[in-house]
Amino acid sequence: MSTVLFDLAGADPEVRFSPYCWRTRFALAHKGLPVRTVPWRFSDREAIAFSGQGRVPVIQDGETVVSDSWAIAEYLEEKAPTPTLFGGATGRAHALFVNAWADSVLLGGIARFIVRDLLDIIDHQDRDYFRSSREARFGQALEAVQAGREDRLAAFRESLLPVRLVLRRQNWLGGAAPSYADHIVAGTLMWPRCASRFALLEQADPVAQWFERVLDLYGGLGRQAKRA
Amino acid sequence: MSTVLFDLAGADPEVRFSPYCWRTRFALAHKGLPVRTVPWRFSDREAIAFSGQGRVPVIQDGETVVSDSWAIAEYLEEKAPTPTLFGGATGRAHALFVNAWADSVLLGGIARFIVRDLLDIIDHQDRDYFRSSREARFGQALEAVQAGREDRLAAFRESLLPVRLVLRRQNWLGGAAPSYADHIVAGTLMWPRCASRFALLEQADPVAQWFERVLDLYGGLGRQAKRA
Repeated sequence: MSTVLFDLAGADPEVRFSPYCWRTRFALAHKGLPVRTVPWRFSDREAIAFSGQGRVPVIQDGETVVSDSWAIAEYLEEKAPTPTLFGGATGRAHALFVNAWADSVLLGGIARFIVRDLLDIIDHQDRDYFRSSREARFGQALEAVQAGREDRLAAFRESLLPVRLVLRRQNWLGGAAPSYADHIVAGTLMWPRCASRFALLEQADPVAQWFERVLDLYGGLGRQAKRA
Repeated sequence: MSTVLFDLAGADPEVRFSPYCWRTRFALAHKGLPVRTVPWRFSDREAIAFSGQGRVPVIQDGETVVSDSWAIAEYLEEKAPTPTLFGGATGRAHALFVNAWADSVLLGGIARFIVRDLLDIIDHQDRDYFRSSREARFGQALEAVQAGREDRLAAFRESLLPVRLVLRRQNWLGGAAPSYADHIVAGTLMWPRCASRFALLEQADPVAQWFERVLDLYGGLGRQAKRA
C-alpha cells in the first residue's frame, strides 16, 4: 500500500513546490517506498486536520500519521532502515545542522528572490492568505521584498559556500552516496526551480552541478517535476 | 607514548588560540589519547617542515605525521574507533558540512571582531608577518577591520542561528553525546575565548550555554586553557 503524502500544489495541481514536501518526496524515493501524493493548498486546513496541525508535508502510512519533514524522515528511517538516510544516530544529529542551516540561511535567502513569483503560481483561493501572512512576516509588500534581486544574487551565491566546500571533497553531502542531507538542500532548491523562472544558481557552480545530479536520482524524479 | 601536537602559541607560550588546533585538542581528548603539545609560532616553519607543509595543527604519532585538523580527525577515528568522533561514514560526511560552515561563516565572522586583538598576543617575531598577511587578505588595516565591532555584534549572533536551532532539539551537535561536530564549533570559539577579551556571545544564548558545557568536558580542558 502506498504512503499518502499531502503535498503543496499551485493553481496547477501538478506544480508542487514546497521545499519541505520535496525533502519528503526525495526521502520516500530514497527508501524505494511507493507514494500517492494528494495536492494540497494553504486553504485546505480541514483536509489535514486529522494530523493535528495545519502544515504539509503530512504522510499517512496505514494507520500512522506523521507531519513535519524532519519527523517524517526519522519515521521513514525507523520503518525502513535501508538504504539509510542518516547512517546512524550521529549522522542524524549532524544532518540536523544541515536542516537548520537550510531552514534559516538557505530558505530565508531564497524567499527574497521568489516570494512575489509564488503569488502568481499558487491557487487563487490561497492568494489573499499568502500575501497577508508573508507581508506580515517581511514587514513589506511582496513586490518590495523581491525588488532588486539581481543585485543581491552575488551575496546569495556566496551564502552557499559551505555546500561548495563540501562538494570539493565528496560527490554528495552524504559522502560517497546521497543521504538525507542531499534531500534537505536539494529539496529546498526544488522550491525556486518549480515556482519561479529566476535563475539562482550559476551553471558553472559546483552546487548547480551537484543539484543536476540530484535531479537525475530516483528515475529523474526532480527533473521531471513540472515547473511553473 | 603521547601524540605530539604542534600547537599555535602566543608570546606567552601557554596561550594557545588556534581554532584548528583546538579542534584537534578536543578530538584527542575525546579519544582519551595522551598528548604532548609543542608551542609553535607562525615563524617556526622549520620546526614543522617534516610535515611537508607550513601550518598547524601537525601531529606526530610514532612514525606517523598528519597535518590539517580534518585529516587528523579522520586519522584518529581510524586509529582509535571508540568513542567515535563521527559515528560512521555518513556521520563523517555530514560533519564535513559543519566543518565547512565553521571555516567560512563562523571563522570569517569572528575574524572581524578579534584580528587586531590577535596582534597584541602573538609572539613579537610573528607580528610583521601577521599584520601584512592579514591586511593583504582583508584589503584593510587590521584596525579598520575590527573597527565598529559593537555595531556588528547582533548580525554575528544572528549568524549562529543554525547552531541555536540544533540545540533546541538536542544537547550536543553530535546528538545525545558530543561528537567532532561539537569540537569543530567549540574549537573555533576557543579562538576568541583565548585570544581576546571581547565578548562575542550573550550569556543567555543557548549557544553560549552549550559552549560552557563543552568547556567542562574532558576534565575542563577548555575552561582551564589560559586566556590572553
